[in-house]
Amino acid sequence: MVNLKEIAIKRLEERGVTIHDIALIVYDLQKQYTTITHEYCQEIVLSVLEEKEVIYAILTGIAIDKAAETNLLDKEVVDLITNDKGIYGIDEILALSIVNRFGSIALTNFGYLDKEKPYIIGRIDQLGKEKRICTTFLDDIVAAIVAACSSTIANK
Amino acid sequence: MVNLKEIAIKRLEERGVTIHDIALIVYDLQKQYTTITHEYCQEIVLSVLEEKEVIYAILTGIAIDKAAETNLLDKEVVDLITNDKGIYGIDEILALSIVNRFGSIALTNFGYLDKEKPYIIGRIDQLGKEKRICTTFLDDIVAAIVAACSSTIANK
Amino acid sequence: MVNLKEIAIKRLEERGVTIHDIALIVYDLQKQYTTITHEYCQEIVLSVLEEKEVIYAILTGIAIDKAAETNLLDKEVVDLITNDKGIYGIDEILALSIVNRFGSIALTNFGYLDKEKPYIIGRIDQLGKEKRICTTFLDDIVAAIVAACSSTIANK
Amino acid sequence: MVNLKEIAIKRLEERGVTIHDIALIVYDLQKQYTTITHEYCQEIVLSVLEEKEVIYAILTGIAIDKAAETNLLDKEVVDLITNDKGIYGIDEILALSIVNRFGSIALTNFGYLDKEKPYIIGRIDQLGKEKRICTTFLDDIVAAIVAACSSTIANK
Repeated sequence: MVNLKEIAIKRLEERGVTIHDIALIVYDLQKQYTTITHEYCQEIVLSVLEEKEVIYAILTGIAIDKAAETNLLDKEVVDLITNDKGIYGIDEILALSIVNRFGSIALTNFGYLDKEKPYIIGRIDQLGKEKRICTTFLDDIVAAIVAACSSTIANK
Repeated sequence: MVNLKEIAIKRLEERGVTIHDIALIVYDLQKQYTTITHEYCQEIVLSVLEEKEVIYAILTGIAIDKAAETNLLDKEVVDLITNDKGIYGIDEILALSIVNRFGSIALTNFGYLDKEKPYIIGRIDQLGKEKRICTTFLDDIVAAIVAACSSTIANK
Repeated sequence: MVNLKEIAIKRLEERGVTIHDIALIVYDLQKQYTTITHEYCQEIVLSVLEEKEVIYAILTGIAIDKAAETNLLDKEVVDLITNDKGIYGIDEILALSIVNRFGSIALTNFGYLDKEKPYIIGRIDQLGKEKRICTTFLDDIVAAIVAACSSTIANK
Repeated sequence: MVNLKEIAIKRLEERGVTIHDIALIVYDLQKQYTTITHEYCQEIVLSVLEEKEVIYAILTGIAIDKAAETNLLDKEVVDLITNDKGIYGIDEILALSIVNRFGSIALTNFGYLDKEKPYIIGRIDQLGKEKRICTTFLDDIVAAIVAACSSTIANK
């Protein structure tokens, strides 16, 4: 699994998302509740990325985004994914495999992040809207990782 | 089921939540996406209250709140519920029986509402914090109903 | 959506699953509780296939299976999906987008079907194990559709 | 939390469920996949009972069962809970707070156990049907604990 964790981090980076970007949102969300540092938030992100549910969701979600943007899926699925109307919903479900694992605080944080789209989540979403790359699954996955980190910190 | 729907509405009112209060948040959330009226939002709330998952969650959640505030449950459970620290989580889970029924848009809206607590949701939460009544389950249930309504409108 | 429903049925058939196959399991599961006919079960299957969550899950799941079997996804994801060890879990999560929509009876039936794998679900699973086609997502989707039908009948 | 874990175990025992009873089902389910002992299964059960989601679900579920059987909840809720028709569904939802925490293997095992009701789960269910005590939430909670243990073993 160590190897898959590293691959997951690499895949995130290839799509423009670093551990630092994720930790930044975690810090911003949690600093109001507790005294934390950026370094601590990075450690929490790395600990969340140890979990197999998180690794599998990252790898699968990014693979689907890439297959959609290069037209490697059935035409009707490419249409659904690249247009990402709010009603598609499979992207949020995939992210749930991360969120469920981290309890109810993760769940409510996920909903909030998915709607507010702060920092890197908003930038990813924007890239998707400009059709530069397909980010339908990626933005939900990043929101889910942040939510998992928030829950981890809150439960400590 | 017709009868249970009426009882559910009555129980909500007894705890200070009217159909009108709920419709107000629905209107406020959805008006930016589509042209709607308050009357229409009230109709949507009433249609969501037809669903048995919604009725059962309302009746059960309010019954638990009331049993907790009058010390009719095991002491340790009364403590957990009346203190409602964010880590308890059973209240959000109960609300999920409503949210799941209405798809992924309901899920993300629920998380948002649970964090932002607009209008009546905030007022309920405040009542609970002042220990005037126990609202641990009620605020999540109302947020879930609003989320279900938002999803219903968005999917039309 | 009418068109997407027809495409979803066609995609299922291309992977060897007919409405008749699905209705057969529904009949077998529900005949002990109520007097039903095969025709009625087919109607229920067709009504479940009206729901967008169901259509999207079918189209997406089958597209992923096909992309995995033709090596169109990242190598590590192809490995995860074509080996479908029990711990992968993304296939069950995708099926949850169907199951959640149909309430708690659907949920418990899904778990049962996923473990027992009756009729067509077992045959799909066997095809996957023989590496003739990739059926990692397909068997869970079919189990979820059957579970949704069982819940629909039980709630009537 | 140590204290609440002990209270949760005591509450289970007061309702007729021992760690040994739970471990017995875990052993029976998992012995086909791996070499395990009863002692190991007991350790796994105790480790699952460390999790706060599990403790909270046990305490809350049993408290609701007891309040229902002594008529301490609203009449309509007592009726819903003591009759536990399959369509109530709040009991399964509460158990989900345990199941979700332990991933997709826990989810499918839960559905299976909820339908098959082996050993102590069946005995609890029977007690409930004979109206000797209310076990509407208890049987789902025990099934969820077993499912969590199965998932824990399978993931090792």
